[in-house]
Amino acid sequence: MGKITKVSPLAPAQFPELPVIEGVTFATASAGVKYQGRTDVMLARLVPGSVIAGVFTRSTTRAAPVLDCQAKIGGASDGGAAILVNSGNANAFTGKGGVASVEAITAAVAQTCGIQQTRVFTSSTGVIGEPLPHDRITDVLSTLANAGDAGGIAAAAKAIMTTDTFPKGASASVNIGGKTVQIAGIAKGSGMIAPDMATMLVYIFTDAVIAQDALQGIVSKHADSTFNCITVDSDTSTSDSLIMAATGASGVDATGNDAFADAVHGLMLNLAHQVVRDGEGATKFVEIAITGAASDADAKVHAMAIANSPLIKTAVAGEDPNWGRVVMAIGKSGAAADRDLLSIRFGDVEVAKDGWRSPSYSEEAAAAHMKGENIAIGVDLGLGNGAATVWTCDLTHGYIEINADYRS
Amino acid sequence: MGKITKVSPLAPAQFPELPVIEGVTFATASAGVKYQGRTDVMLARLVPGSVIAGVFTRSTTRAAPVLDCQAKIGGASDGGAAILVNSGNANAFTGKGGVASVEAITAAVAQTCGIQQTRVFTSSTGVIGEPLPHDRITDVLSTLANAGDAGGIAAAAKAIMTTDTFPKGASASVNIGGKTVQIAGIAKGSGMIAPDMATMLVYIFTDAVIAQDALQGIVSKHADSTFNCITVDSDTSTSDSLIMAATGASGVDATGNDAFADAVHGLMLNLAHQVVRDGEGATKFVEIAITGAASDADAKVHAMAIANSPLIKTAVAGEDPNWGRVVMAIGKSGAAADRDLLSIRFGDVEVAKDGWRSPSYSEEAAAAHMKGENIAIGVDLGLGNGAATVWTCDLTHGYIEINADYRS
Repeated sequence: MGKITKVSPLAPAQFPELPVIEGVTFATASAGVKYQGRTDVMLARLVPGSVIAGVFTRSTTRAAPVLDCQAKIGGASDGGAAILVNSGNANAFTGKGGVASVEAITAAVAQTCGIQQTRVFTSSTGVIGEPLPHDRITDVLSTLANAGDAGGIAAAAKAIMTTDTFPKGASASVNIGGKTVQIAGIAKGSGMIAPDMATMLVYIFTDAVIAQDALQGIVSKHADSTFNCITVDSDTSTSDSLIMAATGASGVDATGNDAFADAVHGLMLNLAHQVVRDGEGATKFVEIAITGAASDADAKVHAMAIANSPLIKTAVAGEDPNWGRVVMAIGKSGAAADRDLLSIRFGDVEVAKDGWRSPSYSEEAAAAHMKGENIAIGVDLGLGNGAATVWTCDLTHGYIEINADYRS
Repeated sequence: MGKITKVSPLAPAQFPELPVIEGVTFATASAGVKYQGRTDVMLARLVPGSVIAGVFTRSTTRAAPVLDCQAKIGGASDGGAAILVNSGNANAFTGKGGVASVEAITAAVAQTCGIQQTRVFTSSTGVIGEPLPHDRITDVLSTLANAGDAGGIAAAAKAIMTTDTFPKGASASVNIGGKTVQIAGIAKGSGMIAPDMATMLVYIFTDAVIAQDALQGIVSKHADSTFNCITVDSDTSTSDSLIMAATGASGVDATGNDAFADAVHGLMLNLAHQVVRDGEGATKFVEIAITGAASDADAKVHAMAIANSPLIKTAVAGEDPNWGRVVMAIGKSGAAADRDLLSIRFGDVEVAKDGWRSPSYSEEAAAAHMKGENIAIGVDLGLGNGAATVWTCDLTHGYIEINADYRS
């Protein structure tokens, strides 16, 4: 979608060195779905026996490929599998034509790769409501099938980008019984980010051996504290999808291994933070930590009310320690709060305490914190033990520039 | 509050000619609460027997004067009454000091005007979290008390402005049994607009005779379809207050009169629209009409999801008929929807039908509608008879300019 502008100032210095995951190869192509002069399709092929889990948006208007993936997750894993992703068109709100496009693509991938159609997972990301010219994708399939490269994940991360200003990748390794299991993942996402179940497009691969229900349990659980805890603009995509595939090529069984689950969590959080760091127009990365709420659920409601407030996000952009707007957001969130028990901090600077400006308040110290690139807003409700942490970015002119004329 | 920028392009050509409401006088003063070189306090004095009703924000962090007003509404109406409003400081999240300020102001008004303190209603609007220098207000009280003018409502509308770019007023008259009842109202509001019970500051006066419970019933009922159906930025103020006073000076009893209630509704809707038309940075006035929802409540959830979507608001700013984002907002709202029954129109242009781009879709026709100043987005869910209409504005660079450094 839209113009790829200059790289986000919050981007990592470089794309990380990702390990080869035995049992999966990647290929990309320029199919011209919408964009010209760049790759826009990626194919990941997985060896027979690969186990696949997924988490998807709960949007009631979710796209045809999302519905198709949801129906297939958890199916038999005896044959090989494939994941095909295109950027430039979301194949969302495209009616029966959209369903037919998914059918055409997955059938063609199955035939080209010699696998069952029920083991082909496809995602589309880009403009909503435009018919997907799926012939352009099926036309490059044989090229893709012949170009598989175990080291091609970095190219895959680029092919799935839309308004992203940098490709997103992360990796982890876990020692299980003296042997090493590798995990690598990629993600795309920059706007329309308020995931409700998973986020944007995320693909994670590991060479571990693991039962499907165990893998599904890990990604479902950790989506809640990673991708479901970020927001750029409060708008939820019709295409949010996270797919994790375990090839088993390492021969190491990670089922029930806590270190493996923790490593997957860390990788998911890393990718979720990268999505925020590429938030459309972002110049500040903001962590909002709520403590002392009546419940964890209440804490998340408060945290998201702050994270989605345009008044707070513009104040952050303007480096203004406007903690009155934090009071406002707590007040409107709908979750329990007692004004006179609230305390608020910006970074390490206590700005409000017991429902009143802190006696030690220093506008200079608070303003100094706001000048940094990483902003921390902390709120203690003083009511109970509920806690939640979410991440967002600021709201700047860049967001409006990117979105005021996205389709043209 | 901050800088008063150039007048909104959506502003009415001029402030309306408002009728004198017998039984109420207005006075304004420059107290220097925060602003310099403009009026920032207004006093409305009401004759003995005036009946007063009110609707207030449900924010859990609502301001001290709001809590004080809520405690007083519905009290005995035998003596005179007064409404005192300051701009520049919201006296919100100001702890015990804020409560003391309300006490000091209402006591001083009561003494100066010779009325009971329980009949003094005060509102404060402006920055949150700063101590209110209430001495500056009490210092000008005797001046205000001596300057009462039955024709001073236009000046009052100006004194209560913060980031507003124009003063807001509206009037109506109703014939009851051959006699005329007059109604006049003023409002302020521009940002932090997503009222939850009432909005911003609104004061409505009538010379009708009416029972307090009847008057309260009218404003409570109509707040739901007027001020509670507008949003500029999804952020809810700590100070939202609507107060309506009936002086009874006309001698005409409007209790139970439908035409009177309708006239109040029309006036409230007029003022609510003016608040949207002065939305911070607004260049387009947007009406969102939902039909065919499973219930009226569901319809409002869908309507507000569209009205608060930054992606839709930026698309409107860019004159882009991006109906895919309307699909997105319906999908994320949480209310019932069936993607394949959705139809969407921009103005009179049907852009989507039965979960698919309309066969008659014309990008040119849709784009032409988006170039206008008044944008109409219609969605039919195809599920039931639920309906709701809400109003909002677009999201532009102006909003960010106004809010990135509001406090300085």
